[in-house]
Amino acid sequence: MEKLFIVKIGGNIIDDEEKLSAFLMSFSELEGKKILVHGGGKLATRVAEALGTPQKMIDGRRVTDPETLKVITMVYAGYINKNIVAKLQALKTDSIGICGVDGNLISAHKRIVKDHDYGFVGHIDSVNFQFLNDLLSKDFTIVIAPVTHNSEGILLNTNADTVANEIAKSCTGIFDVSLVYCFEKSGVMTDADDESTVISELTRRVYEEMKASGKVFAGMIPKLDNAFNALESGIKNIYIGKAENFSALINLKSGTRISFE
Amino acid sequence: MEKLFIVKIGGNIIDDEEKLSAFLMSFSELEGKKILVHGGGKLATRVAEALGTPQKMIDGRRVTDPETLKVITMVYAGYINKNIVAKLQALKTDSIGICGVDGNLISAHKRIVKDHDYGFVGHIDSVNFQFLNDLLSKDFTIVIAPVTHNSEGILLNTNADTVANEIAKSCTGIFDVSLVYCFEKSGVMTDADDESTVISELTRRVYEEMKASGKVFAGMIPKLDNAFNALESGIKNIYIGKAENFSALINLKSGTRISFE
Repeated sequence: MEKLFIVKIGGNIIDDEEKLSAFLMSFSELEGKKILVHGGGKLATRVAEALGTPQKMIDGRRVTDPETLKVITMVYAGYINKNIVAKLQALKTDSIGICGVDGNLISAHKRIVKDHDYGFVGHIDSVNFQFLNDLLSKDFTIVIAPVTHNSEGILLNTNADTVANEIAKSCTGIFDVSLVYCFEKSGVMTDADDESTVISELTRRVYEEMKASGKVFAGMIPKLDNAFNALESGIKNIYIGKAENFSALINLKSGTRISFE
Repeated sequence: MEKLFIVKIGGNIIDDEEKLSAFLMSFSELEGKKILVHGGGKLATRVAEALGTPQKMIDGRRVTDPETLKVITMVYAGYINKNIVAKLQALKTDSIGICGVDGNLISAHKRIVKDHDYGFVGHIDSVNFQFLNDLLSKDFTIVIAPVTHNSEGILLNTNADTVANEIAKSCTGIFDVSLVYCFEKSGVMTDADDESTVISELTRRVYEEMKASGKVFAGMIPKLDNAFNALESGIKNIYIGKAENFSALINLKSGTRISFE
């Protein structure tokens, strides 16, 4: 099976022009088929504030009201997506920037979580693998903004980790899929404040033990639960680490590799 | 040759949710291959003002400084583009929203006009017809935002009429191309204030006579020069009129048809 890399990057790298360019250079040097899923960054907050959109929170989670959805669509699917594609084109990596509504890539429905209405937030129903595969077969690198749609004309803000996860799952069976989650830490650490404690290989057994003894930073739990879930869906390799160390990360010289045992 | 419709819409229809939905319904009912090129609308001005971006003008033309380019990329390639695609998906018209950087669709260079620097404004060098044709052959309707790139990582704001024109020209020879310019008037009129004076068929000879006698509204001249230029490049049918009258327009029951004689 042909190799396919699906890489997710977040705000920490998107907000730093120099680091983003360096990451995109490493990413473009990666041979073969690849998909980049990006989140947002500080620009979304800046635009929302400038437009006077009050940011509502429920239990520490952002509520996507209509104005916030507008800002997310502008910034994620517009500014960030097109600027990443422009930089990749300059690196001679022919790319196409899309979001979940394009080619009906990701259908979703508005999510109601434990009776709380978080607004225009999408829970993914399906991924149109055929469309992805058509673009990949033309050797396009695909850059995906985490905006989905409900097939009734409504766009939905969707968690970028989940988008990367569902995209990756849809590609197993046809591709030998590697999923790379880039975030602000060097990997999964036994001590969140000490970068030297990165676990190079994390098995489910060790993860469950760490969770039970409270050794996993709370913010990491959904990310790691997602990762182990992806592993069970047939994704061969899952890496977690820094976008700044991208080459080292996928060559097992940095970060954490998630594995069964 | 297979028919291909290329339709350009502007801010007057984009800013009116109800009219936009009605237009998209007519557009989606049009059978066969189609491309929609859209401009911007009032949202871009609103966002630019909110972000405190001073709008500089030279000889009545907007200067696209870096902040204005950011707003245009957000609003045109993000918000407007993705919302149109979402509405088309709801109408079961499978669409993909892109701009000139995606798939290297439109390469351009920064334009210097008569010693004035209008900033990040693109003058089109080439259109990647192969990419368009690949998408059209998969029966996608293509929705295009007028943002191009210089192949060195820089996005460029580009006139949407010109984008429609160059896209249309690239498709002649392979497709039987019809180009539809929608704008705020019912067509080309001998009296700009009297909608009953729409010229149903405008030949170059009549147009030149009208220009010579000052009967063409100044703002129409670049649009009509563009249109006649397109006609000479092999575009079979060119229509000018209101998006609200779309079906009537392409059936010659409304608006102006541009023709050789």
